[in-house]
Amino acid sequence: MASRATDRNRTKFLLDEKDIPSKWYNIQADLKTPAPPVLHPSTKQPIGPQDLAPLFPMELIKQEVSRERWIAIPEEIREVYRLWRPSPLYRARRLEKMLGTPARIYYKYEGVSPAGSHKPNTAVAQAYYNKKEKVSRLSTETGAGQWGSALSLACQLFGLQCKVYMVKVSYQQKPYRRIMMETWGAQVVASPSPDTQSGKKILEQDPNSPGSLGIAISEAVEDAATRDDTKYSLGSVLNHVLMHQTVIGLEAKKQLEKADDAADIVIGCAGGGSNFAGLSFPFAADKLAGKNKKMRIVAVEPAACPSLTKGKYVYDFGDTVGLTPLVKMHTLGHTFIPAPLHAGGLRYHGMAPLVCKLYDEGVIEAMAVPQLATFQAAMQFARTEGIIPAPESAHAVRVAIDEALRCKRDGKRQTILFNLSGHGHFDLGAYEAYLAGKLQDYEYPAAKVAEALTQVPKVTA
Amino acid sequence: MASRATDRNRTKFLLDEKDIPSKWYNIQADLKTPAPPVLHPSTKQPIGPQDLAPLFPMELIKQEVSRERWIAIPEEIREVYRLWRPSPLYRARRLEKMLGTPARIYYKYEGVSPAGSHKPNTAVAQAYYNKKEKVSRLSTETGAGQWGSALSLACQLFGLQCKVYMVKVSYQQKPYRRIMMETWGAQVVASPSPDTQSGKKILEQDPNSPGSLGIAISEAVEDAATRDDTKYSLGSVLNHVLMHQTVIGLEAKKQLEKADDAADIVIGCAGGGSNFAGLSFPFAADKLAGKNKKMRIVAVEPAACPSLTKGKYVYDFGDTVGLTPLVKMHTLGHTFIPAPLHAGGLRYHGMAPLVCKLYDEGVIEAMAVPQLATFQAAMQFARTEGIIPAPESAHAVRVAIDEALRCKRDGKRQTILFNLSGHGHFDLGAYEAYLAGKLQDYEYPAAKVAEALTQVPKVTA
Repeated sequence: MASRATDRNRTKFLLDEKDIPSKWYNIQADLKTPAPPVLHPSTKQPIGPQDLAPLFPMELIKQEVSRERWIAIPEEIREVYRLWRPSPLYRARRLEKMLGTPARIYYKYEGVSPAGSHKPNTAVAQAYYNKKEKVSRLSTETGAGQWGSALSLACQLFGLQCKVYMVKVSYQQKPYRRIMMETWGAQVVASPSPDTQSGKKILEQDPNSPGSLGIAISEAVEDAATRDDTKYSLGSVLNHVLMHQTVIGLEAKKQLEKADDAADIVIGCAGGGSNFAGLSFPFAADKLAGKNKKMRIVAVEPAACPSLTKGKYVYDFGDTVGLTPLVKMHTLGHTFIPAPLHAGGLRYHGMAPLVCKLYDEGVIEAMAVPQLATFQAAMQFARTEGIIPAPESAHAVRVAIDEALRCKRDGKRQTILFNLSGHGHFDLGAYEAYLAGKLQDYEYPAAKVAEALTQVPKVTA
Repeated sequence: MASRATDRNRTKFLLDEKDIPSKWYNIQADLKTPAPPVLHPSTKQPIGPQDLAPLFPMELIKQEVSRERWIAIPEEIREVYRLWRPSPLYRARRLEKMLGTPARIYYKYEGVSPAGSHKPNTAVAQAYYNKKEKVSRLSTETGAGQWGSALSLACQLFGLQCKVYMVKVSYQQKPYRRIMMETWGAQVVASPSPDTQSGKKILEQDPNSPGSLGIAISEAVEDAATRDDTKYSLGSVLNHVLMHQTVIGLEAKKQLEKADDAADIVIGCAGGGSNFAGLSFPFAADKLAGKNKKMRIVAVEPAACPSLTKGKYVYDFGDTVGLTPLVKMHTLGHTFIPAPLHAGGLRYHGMAPLVCKLYDEGVIEAMAVPQLATFQAAMQFARTEGIIPAPESAHAVRVAIDEALRCKRDGKRQTILFNLSGHGHFDLGAYEAYLAGKLQDYEYPAAKVAEALTQVPKVTA
């Protein structure tokens, strides 16, 4: 009992390297009904593995549709994970004290990876499986640069070449993220680029195009589809990407046990859904098994881009241009262009199909929060816990603080766990705008969303 | 034996929170002869505690001259240390493999602190003792911003106001470091500023002055000397600062024991000397006690600013203007202005007196390395271990790699330990210059140093 009391008093709950999970958790095994199939964009019939083979290695295609509960993590991947995993679980004692809440607040900190976010958890796995299947080069897109830097690092560690199409406006505004990718050996070009037909076409129409994630995806996919040595890599949304991220939640569960505690509320920000799923799916497993029924799992999205809370649960394209297969998800319409939020990683019109399915079934809930409120929360966090959160992660901080204040009002000693998915070292321009009173909120663009939803393709289920 | 074998195979050697040192190590207790006294700049007689009282709280003045071997770390300071300490010790397995060396390379990683370097180890202690003695505001100077951000964080955590005089050229070129300080609540001004007499005077002569560390020190000292609520805080050089940093080496010794290993070579970069001393003094203690006589301890400085390897061991001013007390140290002359190296933290004309004393007695050695070679080493490190080193820390990486390659040539299985004192997230501009082939080396400016050394005040010992 004495040792337990000591444990509870800690600030950090660390695990040993041997506690790095040896298996990823695949939530598809525990769904009551399978996730809706992915459809071919022209035939609107379910697609097969061969349709995806030009873009992804076979092992990842298998993982995408697997219904095995546990997928073994190869030792070569765990060896790279050791560079930063297990990541720490923190008890936010200073934040609790400042809020005067009886709640216990924990955060899992994924910013300890060399790239500064959770993204390398899947980048490393994807690079490994491609390498194993003799792929020598990966292409991808990146917006603000979190994903591009994670994949650059992973490719460097496995000796793969990496080509990153970086949205031109970010390429110009965030040179440090680009340099980080180049330091890890990647080739980075501003998108639209003259390197692809898609890029050339857009540049002909508009030489000054600022680019978009949709355009960059088109370029990266074309690059992979037209070169034998190259496959494509995606940083969120897909089932296998979410599964690779479950190391976060699997570790967090063990760490909460060390703290002799259990989560009442699990919180993650959600753009494509991967960091949210990574933390929460191992907890959702308990709910799906009929345990911990009262536990709440909350996805937090921007009020200006609220796919779960305001979108429609229909088949839609994953990209803006409309080249990808159709997936059933909560969507604001694939032609919807979100406001220029600083949380670039949350500016996505859709949401991972597996997250949508759990939301549809009531296993998880969702909240939307405005930008200013997220920075206000991030400042409170930085000034008590020290770490400066990424603008995306600040969405989770906001709801964690709100729930802690609710506990204070209601006199409840609940346990709140959230994912601090990354640090804000490359986002300090956003903090400057906040401190200068220049940061703005964006209204929910109801008319634009309604218009975009009319563009969603008709699919008879 | 089995568990030992497992330990040796790890990548990270972590300690528990209860292993955060409870005492700092004060090397003054173990010197055969005391360090030369600090002298009053006009009388050239040893100064007493009252001379320093306007600038520092009494507890820090006591620590500065203490000959007690161990100074207890107050629980309030250890509580803040828990936010990132104990810091990890890494075995650089991927770097070793890439080099093909039989040497074992370990690095202590101090970049895990919220400010990204070792600097908060003393910032937190200094903020605490000032708070305890009812000081409500601290002033300091910062060049590139590592120290300023560490003190801003520490002041925020203890509820002190913080005013940072940031060298104007850095203020303009490194806005992210400034925003980081402001996020933690500090007031940051470009130096020279109109806020002090020293600043005004310089601005009158040259309204476009780019500033210098010397000018910023003058402003910060004047600020503290002219306000009752304010004291001054320094991030390196002084005995108490070096002592606060010994938590690094004390932890590293325990971690090497966990690895069932012992250091043959201990390496740190040295500007003012605090991260080098922090890692190495607990190891130097063994040598001073007649143990581990063959162990080498190496301070690494820039070839363009080589105070230990090329400077004179004489009394000199700590600042450029010549306002501070006189300390006996290896110096290039207080009027020497180093080349604009990217390793801004190593651009100092002198060296911590305690480091100089150990160098003079042959307990430690020193090496000087050129800028390009340090970035070449940093690239090799980033591409194997993932972490992108600060340009200062890259000096230690360079010598660690050189020693590992020597071991390879000689077929020796030595154990190399170095301090990775910080990450390079705010220094990627330097990496960009390196990648673009635009980074240059600077010759050792022998004539300028000879000239500056003529300005050193005459003191008859």
